[in-house]
Amino acid sequence: MKGETTIFFNKVSIIGVGLIGASFALALREKNLCGTIVGFGRKEENLKKAKERRIIDDFSLEIKRVCEDSDLILLSTPISLFKGIVENIRDTLKKGSLLTDVGSIKGSLVYEIESQIPPGIFYIGSHPIAGSDRSGIDDARADLFKSALCIITPTENSDTEAMRIIATIWERIGAQVKFMDPYKHDEVYAAVSHLPHIVAYTLVNTIGDIDSEFIGYAGQGFKDTTRIALSSPELWRDIVVYNRDNLLKLLEVFEKNINDIKRLLEEADSEGIKELFTKAQELRRRLR
Amino acid sequence: MKGETTIFFNKVSIIGVGLIGASFALALREKNLCGTIVGFGRKEENLKKAKERRIIDDFSLEIKRVCEDSDLILLSTPISLFKGIVENIRDTLKKGSLLTDVGSIKGSLVYEIESQIPPGIFYIGSHPIAGSDRSGIDDARADLFKSALCIITPTENSDTEAMRIIATIWERIGAQVKFMDPYKHDEVYAAVSHLPHIVAYTLVNTIGDIDSEFIGYAGQGFKDTTRIALSSPELWRDIVVYNRDNLLKLLEVFEKNINDIKRLLEEADSEGIKELFTKAQELRRRLR
Repeated sequence: MKGETTIFFNKVSIIGVGLIGASFALALREKNLCGTIVGFGRKEENLKKAKERRIIDDFSLEIKRVCEDSDLILLSTPISLFKGIVENIRDTLKKGSLLTDVGSIKGSLVYEIESQIPPGIFYIGSHPIAGSDRSGIDDARADLFKSALCIITPTENSDTEAMRIIATIWERIGAQVKFMDPYKHDEVYAAVSHLPHIVAYTLVNTIGDIDSEFIGYAGQGFKDTTRIALSSPELWRDIVVYNRDNLLKLLEVFEKNINDIKRLLEEADSEGIKELFTKAQELRRRLR
Repeated sequence: MKGETTIFFNKVSIIGVGLIGASFALALREKNLCGTIVGFGRKEENLKKAKERRIIDDFSLEIKRVCEDSDLILLSTPISLFKGIVENIRDTLKKGSLLTDVGSIKGSLVYEIESQIPPGIFYIGSHPIAGSDRSGIDDARADLFKSALCIITPTENSDTEAMRIIATIWERIGAQVKFMDPYKHDEVYAAVSHLPHIVAYTLVNTIGDIDSEFIGYAGQGFKDTTRIALSSPELWRDIVVYNRDNLLKLLEVFEKNINDIKRLLEEADSEGIKELFTKAQELRRRLR
């Protein structure tokens, strides 16, 4: 492993070969950043398919074999499995190896992983903002991270050289890196990602409560607003439960805002409603 | 005007030359359904641009001149202007002419317009589900209605031949027509369109309340979920105020569902959250 202008990893381990893990493998390969890529997962069939498609060079259902002698290990399973996996592999990891993850949750989870890792192994958390409502390898592609944000969450304990290398990997595969405190990360993504998922799921369930047949009349607006309600319930259940403190605070604010609209509607206060809609439109325009 | 296999309108009047009005004009022309198209609007500059781009053949700032001797009149202004416009043109309309609109609100508005119209003029409400967060002629296109739903809302007073012709126009320009009671329409679209708009605006305002800088970290999920918060505040203020009775009922259900999630988060009830997310995912999948 070198951290100068060239970076190259002889062996890379992808723990969890789904949309993100497989795209990371394809991107590393495309940019000639690695030698062998070995995958681990729970479903042999999926790993076989990933090997056939040359996303990974090899795989094993024994995680220790996958991580043995590895230079870079990517955790790309659901976040609830991270601690168990690290517990399992911690004594197998080679001195000097780098460990990162792609989880949507950072905060205390980053510190817990840090505390599990033996000295001489370097862990730095990452979160590429490149998810989708899809989660399998069928949608994996080498350019998934192109122009995507990738949040890197070092702590006061992080090795700066390791941090620099992790940032470089993401940049090489096209991402725009930003550094952020792990707890701040969870506060920000509770707002711009986790709350929207809760809202989208809830919006769909509200239609279901009224009359599920109504959904057949929906247009593009509804489709876009609720696209993320197609996302994996297991994955998002884990995320929102981990981040529940931030989410509970946000839901209070969201409910207050819904109540404001209700009050304005009850009073048929057109001006007040227009003001709220205009405020939202202006803020949303920053993202055009 | 013939209602057999061929339909053709010598003069068509577009009242409000925005995204929908201009696209309707372009579509009629493309399908050779009309002779002259005349536009009315409040902004002369916009009408000039529409004429230069051959969206309309001519325009006037005097609405009566635009509607005189017209065979088909389309109301495509914000809904709050409909009644005033009909009041203005009712005595100018030619016997046998057809009037329709593209408003997102039907319900009592359809009956009010019906009662304003003199005998011998035929009004049938339409609602093409082809809106967008854009509202100007720059995004107008002849195929805007292709594969889009168009809800037609006849009443017990509607002329069946007029209803058939209006349906045929929309079908000829690519839309998939469905008939619906005007009040039922408002109930359905409160759920699948008006509530999502309120939710999207509210979601953006919630980020604004927490920290508007957070929006810079948003990914595609947030962008999609809140795209409709880019929609015209004036247009949507009118729609939600007109449909407030349906919306207030829906907001109660939505709030109850948000409260259910809050309770499950407080209890860290992973199973319960997964169940709600799964229920939403399954219903949303009907729209893939």
